[in-house]
Amino acid sequence: MEKNNLVSGMRSTGKLHLGHYIGVITNWVKLQEEFNCFYFVADWHALTTKYDKTQTLKQDKLDVVLDWLACGIDPKKSIIYYQSKVLQIAELHVLLSMITPNNWVERDPTLKDMVKIIKNKDSDGNDNVPQLNYGLLGYPILMSADIMAMNAKVVPVGIDQLAHLEITRDIVRRFNNIYKTVLFNEPKPKLTETPLLLGVDGQKMGKSFQNDIKISDDEDTTAKKIMQCITDRSRARKDDPGHPDKCEVAFKYYQAFANYEIVDQVECECKAGKRGCADCKRQLGKIINDNFSIIRQKRRELENDVNTVLDIINEGNKKAAIEAEKVLQKVRETVNI
Amino acid sequence: MEKNNLVSGMRSTGKLHLGHYIGVITNWVKLQEEFNCFYFVADWHALTTKYDKTQTLKQDKLDVVLDWLACGIDPKKSIIYYQSKVLQIAELHVLLSMITPNNWVERDPTLKDMVKIIKNKDSDGNDNVPQLNYGLLGYPILMSADIMAMNAKVVPVGIDQLAHLEITRDIVRRFNNIYKTVLFNEPKPKLTETPLLLGVDGQKMGKSFQNDIKISDDEDTTAKKIMQCITDRSRARKDDPGHPDKCEVAFKYYQAFANYEIVDQVECECKAGKRGCADCKRQLGKIINDNFSIIRQKRRELENDVNTVLDIINEGNKKAAIEAEKVLQKVRETVNI
Repeated sequence: MEKNNLVSGMRSTGKLHLGHYIGVITNWVKLQEEFNCFYFVADWHALTTKYDKTQTLKQDKLDVVLDWLACGIDPKKSIIYYQSKVLQIAELHVLLSMITPNNWVERDPTLKDMVKIIKNKDSDGNDNVPQLNYGLLGYPILMSADIMAMNAKVVPVGIDQLAHLEITRDIVRRFNNIYKTVLFNEPKPKLTETPLLLGVDGQKMGKSFQNDIKISDDEDTTAKKIMQCITDRSRARKDDPGHPDKCEVAFKYYQAFANYEIVDQVECECKAGKRGCADCKRQLGKIINDNFSIIRQKRRELENDVNTVLDIINEGNKKAAIEAEKVLQKVRETVNI
Repeated sequence: MEKNNLVSGMRSTGKLHLGHYIGVITNWVKLQEEFNCFYFVADWHALTTKYDKTQTLKQDKLDVVLDWLACGIDPKKSIIYYQSKVLQIAELHVLLSMITPNNWVERDPTLKDMVKIIKNKDSDGNDNVPQLNYGLLGYPILMSADIMAMNAKVVPVGIDQLAHLEITRDIVRRFNNIYKTVLFNEPKPKLTETPLLLGVDGQKMGKSFQNDIKISDDEDTTAKKIMQCITDRSRARKDDPGHPDKCEVAFKYYQAFANYEIVDQVECECKAGKRGCADCKRQLGKIINDNFSIIRQKRRELENDVNTVLDIINEGNKKAAIEAEKVLQKVRETVNI
């Protein structure tokens, strides 16, 4: 039986961090077995907020793909491509724009949040802020074009992102309805556990917050950053009994990266006051470094062979464009344009 | 010296009428000598309001090109193409969307009018009305992409359309400013007299008002429609003195299509009460039919050789895409995407 198409993308944020690894990539690696996966770097989407900060964009895009490949996204199984290299997505975006009521995009919850941020920052007189540009407003339609251009049956989403897919399903229904067709199927959410990994400071992990650990960080850097992890703030001395459930970051990292036995041992020793936080984080650093040693080795090899990686991307761009062209041929026929 | 690029388009409204001929096409024919002209059928733009009425779109597009060719738009001199066949325009549209403030498109005067019409009709409970879709809102950006994708130096506009070009010039400046480049030149308006030809009923000529005379109408149809032209409403009998300046339609058609001597003669005889309106319109019908006899003959020949016309369009599509690809290569490099 032919595998169903699945589409998912990540913005071109540059080198990825452990939050991306735990929240997205490990899942993508698994999905490769069950689906015909289209994984893209959302470089057009990146421009919705960073249109004027593109100096590093090319390297950032490459870094994202380097991380994917190092972590096990396999170009023999999945199609890896840059969104901006598939012009049919832009074409479909124009066509979908014509049938999508403006108030549908205005009511998008993520967009509403963004607009709030923009307006708040604006009123602070901060001009280092993205404007509410037409393209930012339309990002749910561009996202729908990403999905529909590959005629994806499935889109992996976390439970908190279910609403994002609703507008695409609405647009699919509207298209099929207006043009009296069944060309598009409503993409189904593939619900995935996307455990949220916090930054070392206990806030949301992000490059811009400088609280992230990169997949590609070296061992020293990783170990040093891990030492900054917030632990149990109520614990004064290392032989006080600790509270793993109140340990804001370090114990959560153990749960994410260590095996069950070790997590158990850490919990017992901490509660018994037999494990100081510094020692505990030193061990955590080693575990994480062990965890990523093969991935990092692979990444270094890829970095030294960038042409092969660019070939992989070019090949993926072509395959994605062929898939999208197949879909768009049907769309043009249906719209009668 | 190399000719400058000039871009102009018409919506795919189907067979064109004498208003198009007088207001646009005769001017386009002349511009071919001075400029490297890119003339396109704006089929994506047509979807901004008629996204759900595309049954006749393909024939409508072809009819527009048939009229152009019959009237003297020369594929050896000009590039004739369908907007939707140049995907680079959609790509540029995405990129320009990211830098164009949403309030720039919201303030577009034509759009404001459209929104008013849409809202009024909506409140009448009329559902045969275009919605305010995201694509309709963005039409000034798509128009800018049409112009900028061909790096046009010149755009022909009537004096009342000057404002339309301003947003494109604004977007050009913003692009050059953000990306610190001089890639795009601000397209200059080529101011043209665009005499407005009224419909036979004295209202704006338009297909939907059923008051238009098509370039491709046959002689009988033309003659009959001309007999419906409003003349001097104050004139009761044919030997009453007439008032050519109050003749709402017929005399204006004389001015548009007859030579100076005849216009003079008509004016004198009318004022002297020596020329009845019916006779006057019979003569007018003959003059217009004479005027278009060669054009109509040419159009019939083209209709009987549609494959040649489709070849011309395909060739134009390719040439336009090559020109746009040259521009977009520079754009991608500049944006660093």
